[in-house]
Amino acid sequence: MLTLNTNSLQTIDQNHGLTTEEINETGNKISSYLEKIHAHKQGFYDILDDEETIEKVKSFAKAAKDKYEHIIVFGIGGSSLGTICLQQSLTHLFKSKKLHVIDNIDPIMIKEMEDIIDYNKTLFIIITKSGGTPETLSEYFYIREKCNEAGLDPKEHFVFITDPKKGLLREIANEENIPSFEIPENVGGRFSVLTPVGLLPAALMGLEIDQLITGAKTMRQKFLDKNIENNAPFRLATMQYLLEKKGKTLNVLMPYSQKLIRLSDWYRQLLAESIGKRHDNDGKEVFTGLTPINALGVTDQHSQAQLYNEGPNDKFFIFIDVKDFGTDMEIPNLKPQSPTVDFLQNVSFRKLMHTEKKGSEQALTKNDRPNITITVDSVSEETLGEVFMLFEASIAFLGEFYNIDAFNQPGVELSKNLTKELLLQS
Amino acid sequence: MLTLNTNSLQTIDQNHGLTTEEINETGNKISSYLEKIHAHKQGFYDILDDEETIEKVKSFAKAAKDKYEHIIVFGIGGSSLGTICLQQSLTHLFKSKKLHVIDNIDPIMIKEMEDIIDYNKTLFIIITKSGGTPETLSEYFYIREKCNEAGLDPKEHFVFITDPKKGLLREIANEENIPSFEIPENVGGRFSVLTPVGLLPAALMGLEIDQLITGAKTMRQKFLDKNIENNAPFRLATMQYLLEKKGKTLNVLMPYSQKLIRLSDWYRQLLAESIGKRHDNDGKEVFTGLTPINALGVTDQHSQAQLYNEGPNDKFFIFIDVKDFGTDMEIPNLKPQSPTVDFLQNVSFRKLMHTEKKGSEQALTKNDRPNITITVDSVSEETLGEVFMLFEASIAFLGEFYNIDAFNQPGVELSKNLTKELLLQS
Repeated sequence: MLTLNTNSLQTIDQNHGLTTEEINETGNKISSYLEKIHAHKQGFYDILDDEETIEKVKSFAKAAKDKYEHIIVFGIGGSSLGTICLQQSLTHLFKSKKLHVIDNIDPIMIKEMEDIIDYNKTLFIIITKSGGTPETLSEYFYIREKCNEAGLDPKEHFVFITDPKKGLLREIANEENIPSFEIPENVGGRFSVLTPVGLLPAALMGLEIDQLITGAKTMRQKFLDKNIENNAPFRLATMQYLLEKKGKTLNVLMPYSQKLIRLSDWYRQLLAESIGKRHDNDGKEVFTGLTPINALGVTDQHSQAQLYNEGPNDKFFIFIDVKDFGTDMEIPNLKPQSPTVDFLQNVSFRKLMHTEKKGSEQALTKNDRPNITITVDSVSEETLGEVFMLFEASIAFLGEFYNIDAFNQPGVELSKNLTKELLLQS
Repeated sequence: MLTLNTNSLQTIDQNHGLTTEEINETGNKISSYLEKIHAHKQGFYDILDDEETIEKVKSFAKAAKDKYEHIIVFGIGGSSLGTICLQQSLTHLFKSKKLHVIDNIDPIMIKEMEDIIDYNKTLFIIITKSGGTPETLSEYFYIREKCNEAGLDPKEHFVFITDPKKGLLREIANEENIPSFEIPENVGGRFSVLTPVGLLPAALMGLEIDQLITGAKTMRQKFLDKNIENNAPFRLATMQYLLEKKGKTLNVLMPYSQKLIRLSDWYRQLLAESIGKRHDNDGKEVFTGLTPINALGVTDQHSQAQLYNEGPNDKFFIFIDVKDFGTDMEIPNLKPQSPTVDFLQNVSFRKLMHTEKKGSEQALTKNDRPNITITVDSVSEETLGEVFMLFEASIAFLGEFYNIDAFNQPGVELSKNLTKELLLQS
């Protein structure tokens, strides 16, 4: 279960916070915004009903279970950040991993990946929505040639995840009968974690993908609810929007959970690419954007809290609190007489974590820094499904608040074209 | 070798960039700022001459070499971020690691660490400058009790790194003769990577700590040079300061190197805690602060570039370019006829990486987004030493530009006190 606690916004100087009235006043926009969102015909909330694909993913994973020693995912941005988050969140933090994600083209990264794999016993998952991402295709070519040289059957060592019809990767899949999964045409990369892009690697890691979908469906219901009190995604978006108008142009996502450290990287792309736009829907130059910042509790209390409390008041803090970490241990105070640690009596690590989060929240509030808390019962497939859908749906609403297209990314073309030109010139 | 290329600042709209004149005009401040910095009596640049400590670290590491299966570092913030950066930068990306850093108190993190270690064969390094960090002491107590229960000699399984005289950890070291290293009293946690805090874990990972020191000494010489053209740390600081006056309140550190991904986390603390200050040296309320943002090339081109190019023009981009990644491979273009990839002819991964960086830089410049490039020959102990000292010294200059104390962190006390109160009430 996921809840959103926004009480602290009301207790700070209203130049920096929000009253319940300010938030609720926007509720009359839900219906029209939902209509506009539906008109975009984006698939990120429909894909949850695609049971056929979910079954196909599960049976592929079942068949592949003991077949490979290593699984390497090649993908970048929306093709990798969801998987990285799922792996960090739901698998063991220190045991050596069977699945690795290669989301960069640094040659030493590729070389050191090769150091640990045996091509004969490795499955390569190639993910690109467009089917034409140069970085991912370059890596595919490199690995494919190695497989060819070793006489390996590509149908046994590759699986593609790409557009159903378009793009070079789809062409290759069709020509050579390479196993493949589809990313629906109307689901952008950064919204694709609940398509095979995230589901296939998740299933191959042994995760319960049905539970991911269940959680996402719970949140979808809230997303479609026209009552602001029930619509957590809308409430999040309206707070981000209204606080930006009060100068909070930076959004800090700070889970208090080691397992959720990479969730912020996934969200960073979603918020940055969706809302950072030069033009609005009417073609007006607006240069909108909320800059996402990733942080981690309690760790970054010892790295960022000084700035957060005393620096410019330009940030909105979104905490994530986890009720049950899956385990807990008492802290034995071996120096109970020392004033340095005399407050550590009958305290467990869980309690210390929760109390430090509360202390951080209260300090920010006293310093007039707006903050809210998302609470989840535990870090599980189900709660992650809820969290993914909460953020995706809130982004859709944010796009409407700003009157921009939250689903495109025109601003990356320039550097892509410049890169191509530079390569052709050289 | 490290160089700083600032040409692109001059080619953009001067409301957003800087002319050579604007930069050079500040050069006359170097002497007085250096005097003020010396007056702080901070040790971060003197420690490089402490050969005795460096030898002590090396001999401890030599003696410990084959004695332990695992080494666990407990520390948070300045006690861990340097080590995490060194490990990511200079050890294999995928081979399983002997040394792990625990920089959070999430109980599942501690429990899963316990899953992989055998207490009989593990060395625990406990790091806290003050000797009183509650998170680190809690973990020490927990681990120490386990060792006691197992009848293990703490002198064989623990090493402390803390203040020479003060604090609970130093008391325990003295009482129980536990091996320990000193963090000089005048070196703050975030400036301590070149003390035993970073050097001991580095030596235990098999790194060449002499080379770290050599690189840092090279940069120290530049730091103390009164000619602005030679003083890279001053030039960096002056650009950060002048650009902040032009609205660039966010500093994005974006290495194009997978190995340097965690350097940005280390720098994030250094910049945030040092410059994010409510009061200046005259007690005036100023709320200064540059908000650090970590990014990675080429990966974040597919996550953050849209915002960087089209969002608010509030960021200064500091790229890091690596000349030699340590390896390189040609990209075999298996579909040379396809317009999707026809530009990939005679391109290696290194060349693609470098060209994409250039493309990104040119795109930002065309969009009037100020950016500079730090170039290093390779990712090595020596260049990391240079980079650490470049950033530490530039922070010292920045403190003088803002007339603030870059070496304290008064803003973290409030949440600490609130946490203690909450624990005592409960």
